[in-house]
Amino acid sequence: MTTDAASLPPQWKKGLGQGNLALAQINVTPGNLAGNAAKIMRALRAAEQQAVDVVIFPELALMGYPPRDVIVRYPFLVAENLKWLTHIAAKTNQTWAMIGFVEPRYPQAPEKRTGKGAFNAVAVLGEGKIQAIIRKSLLPGDNEFEDYRQFEASSLSGASGAEWLTHCEPNPPAFNNNGLIQIHGRSYGVSICEDLWNDGDFFDNPLYARNPIAELAAQQPDVLINISASPTRSHKEPIRHSLCAYVAQKYQTPLVYVNQVGSVDEVSFDGASRAYNAQGNLFARAKAFEEQLLIINPLHSQGTIEPLPVGQEKEQALTTTPQSFNAYDTSDLGRTYQTLLQGIRDYFEKTGFQKAVLGLSGGLDSSVVVVLLADALGPNNVLAVSMPSGITPAENKSDAQTIADQLGIALVEIPIAAITEAFGQGLAQVRATLESQWGPTDPRSNALDNVQAISRATILRQLGNEFRALPIATSDKSEFYLGYATINGDMSGALAPIGDLPKTKVRALAHWLNENRPAHVKTPRHDVLPDWVIRKPSGADLKQDPITGKLVTAEDELMPYEFADEIIWRIEARHQSYQDMLNEDFQYEQTHPLDAATKQEWLRKFFDRMPKAVFKWFVAPPILMVEGNGSIAKSDYHHPIVANRIQWQGHTEAEIEAILNLQ
Amino acid sequence: MTTDAASLPPQWKKGLGQGNLALAQINVTPGNLAGNAAKIMRALRAAEQQAVDVVIFPELALMGYPPRDVIVRYPFLVAENLKWLTHIAAKTNQTWAMIGFVEPRYPQAPEKRTGKGAFNAVAVLGEGKIQAIIRKSLLPGDNEFEDYRQFEASSLSGASGAEWLTHCEPNPPAFNNNGLIQIHGRSYGVSICEDLWNDGDFFDNPLYARNPIAELAAQQPDVLINISASPTRSHKEPIRHSLCAYVAQKYQTPLVYVNQVGSVDEVSFDGASRAYNAQGNLFARAKAFEEQLLIINPLHSQGTIEPLPVGQEKEQALTTTPQSFNAYDTSDLGRTYQTLLQGIRDYFEKTGFQKAVLGLSGGLDSSVVVVLLADALGPNNVLAVSMPSGITPAENKSDAQTIADQLGIALVEIPIAAITEAFGQGLAQVRATLESQWGPTDPRSNALDNVQAISRATILRQLGNEFRALPIATSDKSEFYLGYATINGDMSGALAPIGDLPKTKVRALAHWLNENRPAHVKTPRHDVLPDWVIRKPSGADLKQDPITGKLVTAEDELMPYEFADEIIWRIEARHQSYQDMLNEDFQYEQTHPLDAATKQEWLRKFFDRMPKAVFKWFVAPPILMVEGNGSIAKSDYHHPIVANRIQWQGHTEAEIEAILNLQ
Repeated sequence: MTTDAASLPPQWKKGLGQGNLALAQINVTPGNLAGNAAKIMRALRAAEQQAVDVVIFPELALMGYPPRDVIVRYPFLVAENLKWLTHIAAKTNQTWAMIGFVEPRYPQAPEKRTGKGAFNAVAVLGEGKIQAIIRKSLLPGDNEFEDYRQFEASSLSGASGAEWLTHCEPNPPAFNNNGLIQIHGRSYGVSICEDLWNDGDFFDNPLYARNPIAELAAQQPDVLINISASPTRSHKEPIRHSLCAYVAQKYQTPLVYVNQVGSVDEVSFDGASRAYNAQGNLFARAKAFEEQLLIINPLHSQGTIEPLPVGQEKEQALTTTPQSFNAYDTSDLGRTYQTLLQGIRDYFEKTGFQKAVLGLSGGLDSSVVVVLLADALGPNNVLAVSMPSGITPAENKSDAQTIADQLGIALVEIPIAAITEAFGQGLAQVRATLESQWGPTDPRSNALDNVQAISRATILRQLGNEFRALPIATSDKSEFYLGYATINGDMSGALAPIGDLPKTKVRALAHWLNENRPAHVKTPRHDVLPDWVIRKPSGADLKQDPITGKLVTAEDELMPYEFADEIIWRIEARHQSYQDMLNEDFQYEQTHPLDAATKQEWLRKFFDRMPKAVFKWFVAPPILMVEGNGSIAKSDYHHPIVANRIQWQGHTEAEIEAILNLQ
Repeated sequence: MTTDAASLPPQWKKGLGQGNLALAQINVTPGNLAGNAAKIMRALRAAEQQAVDVVIFPELALMGYPPRDVIVRYPFLVAENLKWLTHIAAKTNQTWAMIGFVEPRYPQAPEKRTGKGAFNAVAVLGEGKIQAIIRKSLLPGDNEFEDYRQFEASSLSGASGAEWLTHCEPNPPAFNNNGLIQIHGRSYGVSICEDLWNDGDFFDNPLYARNPIAELAAQQPDVLINISASPTRSHKEPIRHSLCAYVAQKYQTPLVYVNQVGSVDEVSFDGASRAYNAQGNLFARAKAFEEQLLIINPLHSQGTIEPLPVGQEKEQALTTTPQSFNAYDTSDLGRTYQTLLQGIRDYFEKTGFQKAVLGLSGGLDSSVVVVLLADALGPNNVLAVSMPSGITPAENKSDAQTIADQLGIALVEIPIAAITEAFGQGLAQVRATLESQWGPTDPRSNALDNVQAISRATILRQLGNEFRALPIATSDKSEFYLGYATINGDMSGALAPIGDLPKTKVRALAHWLNENRPAHVKTPRHDVLPDWVIRKPSGADLKQDPITGKLVTAEDELMPYEFADEIIWRIEARHQSYQDMLNEDFQYEQTHPLDAATKQEWLRKFFDRMPKAVFKWFVAPPILMVEGNGSIAKSDYHHPIVANRIQWQGHTEAEIEAILNLQ
């Protein structure tokens, strides 16, 4: 963890009682109590050396957020986290600490009890003991959040005395100091994550009736503190910035926001902890996507503002600009790159793997993924495999070699023709028997195409097994929506790094990578991805046109990706229906005039394919979430597989009457 | 749908105003509005013919439960469901209807609004219009439930006037008739599913502060009605029966409980709708696992009691008998069989498939699954494939043939030696290159064993593509916990029918199948599963001992399944920790004396393997949930993949001190 503690500028007033705070933006792992506690302890000691009044950790820092159902199934973990907390408390001195933890509501397991077993809580530790407890009031349960599954909501804002914890009383005692925490002469109003996100003046649709921040602010604390684990998603930074600034200004009280950094499976936290003064001006912000101990003083607006990722450097105010589908849009790509890098790195590190293996076809998706892997894991830890079939064009192989050479990664070739032939022969032996019983094979069958994709994934898995490497899935979001990803094939692997990026954004990211990768990973010679690879029409190299012999591209079979990606955006961001889209002009149509029949055909094709693809979402590996409006990642969106008879075009009143009258 | 309407006994008072009710236990599909509405309309017409006062449908009958996030992402579906509801309302006459639907809270989309967009609601329809609305108060969010993700909780029990719906007022108007529904001279207190399940006198740990049933009962309705979609799980029937009986008796009011039937992906609803009189006695119960229109009269305790599945026929009272691990325990197997049959049948029917293809190894798991498939889909729709490798014993092949013959299903043989050899050769070409770079292969690698399992699954998928059949996964719950299931191999497929059955229960089910399958599917000659198949030690036929040449069984490698299954039960049902288990006597130990070192070794092995298996749970196909205490089905349990550094043995106070002092 970097700390700017040593470089505290000379004009700061040092020592206890000055109102200096340390924001300990750490990267924790759910369930790894010993590892998380060790990190907390190190940050606490570093903060003590600077004699700050309080060091503040992210939400559930001790248990690791999100713990999901693990804490329900294994209550011993909750008991253990309390043990660790008690020991850490005993080691505190005059620098206090605020540490997120799982508070058991009924540690003595009485026979009768009401509600769930735990609070999402923050313990205030100081001078050798637990001084107070704050509990989360608003429990999100949508998208990637599931606090409501595991936690009981607190009916009170602010702090309760620690006697609740130790005496195990079923109802909280009266607030200490009106719910504020007093430390070295200053009062702090502490809330947890979602508690901040329900201001009815700021949001058109607050999700809850209460606003815990208003309740806290009414007690007139010197400083408001929000302790968070708030995932990064596209277009979230301007909202977060605007909200924090708004709240600080509204209550004319400095606001300190401490966020977790690091990734947990599909969900990534970007850190960028920050502080605003009573006028709502940002005066300190920690790094994004890195651990840091940032020291600030909210009373004197003192602190460092670290930059956001490339493209987001400027402080942004809330904007309603819609996401663009231009392949060269780069507004969010710096954050996207950092999110994917951290997502890959943490997934490997936290599961204990160093090496990745992937199929490098010379196409766009695998070319982008291999760059991400090389940057995240180091070129020596990436093995690319070229697995040509009989129909793979020679230039694809040479493109793969070019990219591998540029990145300095190993590339080996394993042709798959003999394998797919062996599968074909296996089937040929029994085809006659089966056709006599079940009739002729389905003419729409992609069996042999799929066998190629599965054979490739099998080779990767085999290599992964032999060399303790994780095989990587290269499917993108457009393919996941259109069902253009093969089960046990290209969509299979330990992780799907670009599974939340629509094809047009993958292409934009490819351009971005050539320009913007940080110097230390940048290929010295020239652009890592040749322009023709980025422009190459996307196909899976699986299928040949039976007449022309040409490879069939995905867009030939389906529709232009720019159009498909705009459908996806209209679904996820606008919640539009088939009819809405039919009646509204697409951005795509501004540059590509489209007759009504073609537009309808494409829309129908999309809504015909999408419900059948839902099964693939169910068995997909973790998809690193980057987009702001929605995804098909399992932690984010749940769609029953059998819900595949939705009548996407809706029914007219007359059709409804006709169906009902038939009964 | 069967209806006993025609056979209404002569002593019943017929006609409107007699208090006769029809329970329309139907099987709906999420999102299929036209299909669900047609079913509803047919049941309504059948009920009208019997001149009942009201026909009652299950929770969200019109939209289909559980809709999951589909209704959030596609609000047009909610608008459509309101359109259908309005048309159905216009068709009602003097027989009223209670129909579960998704009520949009803000159909006119005002700029400012609070809370989620919809209620889980019931509309009361009659005499041509929507008469009243009831909204769900208690929203479950644990296990397979996620009402809280999509719905806003109602703060009121009972009915509001329909003007709320049509006028789109943000707050409900005052109750009509104190929240009771008046129909033909009688008053009904209506609640929705979870609203019934929070009686603080009945449950030791009610999850919510409110008890909507008490609020309703205080208004003294003639009849309490609970409108449900309540999944079937092991040991749930006695709780449900006891709860319903308790509530009816407590309030001295008849209780009518209407439940959905049918399966949605992993979750199965068993119907068995029922009614209790004011003394708490069951007087009517619909069939389990079948659609039915059951006519009852709660005022006169009139109705038919249909039997529960084999083994559950008797009315059961609440019991705390722990689940047994004896392989021959049969207490729950009738329900298990029916659940699996319905789960398979509905998954195929609702996704539009008729045929299944599976690998039949002659081992226990695939032998049990093939019987289930044949019973659920019909023998003509099942294709079994024997896929011997070089090390498959001849008796396994002949066992597969025996079972296929008994069931009358097709069996074809496709040897995989040529395929795995082709994979081996592909790898051999590059092994030297790779070893020079990455060092020698991992000695613990299962690469070649896994390639066998993946090759088999690839053949099944290929056949599935060609013949429009769904490939089926055969892994069981013990294998899923121990990681003894191959990714893209035996655990791959469109559905995992026995993924929630521990190995010992699979074995018990095998015995049960021989004795108890219904006559119409029973093999005429003798037991469908030869005794030696059921007793065969489970291995995956993947691995040979390098010295003895014998096949390595799973139990050789790991531990006895009876012991492993008891660990699973202690985790899921008792939430025990590693230490708890070390300190407690296992049931297993009563018959198999066990020294402390071996017990510890097995426990360590389990807790070492289990966290690594979590990834497999994430990419598993839908697992039909049957067990009552927990599962690893994705709809039921969420465990971060990176949460794999949990210190299962916990830490002593001294260890904690040592780690913290190091920092």
